[in-house]
Amino acid sequence: MSKNLLILGGSGALGSEIITLFKNKGWKTISIDFRDNTKSDISISITSTNASELHRVEEILKSTNTKADTIVCAAGGWVGGNAADEGYLGSVQKMIDMNLYSAFGTAFLGSKFLNENGLLVLTGANAALQPTSFMIAYGATKAATHHLIKSLAQPDSGLPNNSTTVGILPITLDTPINRTAMPNSNFDDWTPLSDIANKLYEWSSIPESRPTGGSLLSIITKNKVTTYTPQ
Amino acid sequence: MSKNLLILGGSGALGSEIITLFKNKGWKTISIDFRDNTKSDISISITSTNASELHRVEEILKSTNTKADTIVCAAGGWVGGNAADEGYLGSVQKMIDMNLYSAFGTAFLGSKFLNENGLLVLTGANAALQPTSFMIAYGATKAATHHLIKSLAQPDSGLPNNSTTVGILPITLDTPINRTAMPNSNFDDWTPLSDIANKLYEWSSIPESRPTGGSLLSIITKNKVTTYTPQ
Repeated sequence: MSKNLLILGGSGALGSEIITLFKNKGWKTISIDFRDNTKSDISISITSTNASELHRVEEILKSTNTKADTIVCAAGGWVGGNAADEGYLGSVQKMIDMNLYSAFGTAFLGSKFLNENGLLVLTGANAALQPTSFMIAYGATKAATHHLIKSLAQPDSGLPNNSTTVGILPITLDTPINRTAMPNSNFDDWTPLSDIANKLYEWSSIPESRPTGGSLLSIITKNKVTTYTPQ
Repeated sequence: MSKNLLILGGSGALGSEIITLFKNKGWKTISIDFRDNTKSDISISITSTNASELHRVEEILKSTNTKADTIVCAAGGWVGGNAADEGYLGSVQKMIDMNLYSAFGTAFLGSKFLNENGLLVLTGANAALQPTSFMIAYGATKAATHHLIKSLAQPDSGLPNNSTTVGILPITLDTPINRTAMPNSNFDDWTPLSDIANKLYEWSSIPESRPTGGSLLSIITKNKVTTYTPQ
């Protein structure tokens, strides 16, 4: 029987890459995002990650009797600025909506639809391991995500038995948007999306390869070589 | 010239206690809360801590040329439950609204109205120093608050020069609501509100007594003796 991958944020750069790879490996894919991923076996379009939209997704997945072996949150975003910036209060709301509600929402979907022995992956940020005054709302929402990852890894978190929750903490992903925003960077030190997709597939298909539950893995790429280091 | 205290959450149990003490010491007090604190010199009633309400508060304080030497976030709340609880998604929204928007909002007010050499205090939670699967949304929002405290303590955070940001991390406060909710507890191990009010007054009036900026202080009460331990 084929296995299922569910991604919140399945239409973004990282999410699309993961879906393509898992499909190529024979997995069935379920994408949830603000716009459809037409390459995904199932694609559910949502308008937000608030409770009513998540309950709508829940009904759709229940009615199709769909569960997942791996669930990933690839949704999120970045806004810079400190507490005195003109856009500060707007950045707070954006970061809470994009990073925090998506992480909490993925945990909700995990509690309902992750299979036993499944894998749940949330996206943190290596930068949030330290204070982040210059991107103050971003860092705080990612620190909350890190805490959520550790809580979800506890046995009484509401996730199914023998499931594993892991956090991936990228520095800079090699995406078209980032190349446009930072054209003079050294791309050899950015993490290729295919690298993360391959790593998630390894963890998904070989349970013994998974990091310990609750691990926060810094993804560090230097000279085109990527390492995953538990913090 | 008298000094000014501004509190977000000035009508709650902790906020009221702090306002009363600072008033008794000759400070002018500004309370911001969902309901008025009639004992406060200035009381601003808000309907939420979203951007439009905070900008309204900003206009009021600007028009009265009001600044503050100490700014405290005493707002917040608690909801339990793990990711599988029926009320999980509701608890996520409550905890983000009550704990996180209030903390970010206090930082906003700090960037606009804290005087140089001022003190900004946010309320974290001792429990959030560890994973909190049984109160999963609460812990994550308090972990975000801890991160925000550390970011605000950096020199380029947007707060005024020589200001100090500190986090207080209570375990259980001795409030009427908590006595009603947990009547069989040992109240000698709960922290009296007056104790925290006195400590905030000490830090406010004697700058040399302040903890290092960015400190997270666990407030531990045992047999009626309270200690403040940096984490």
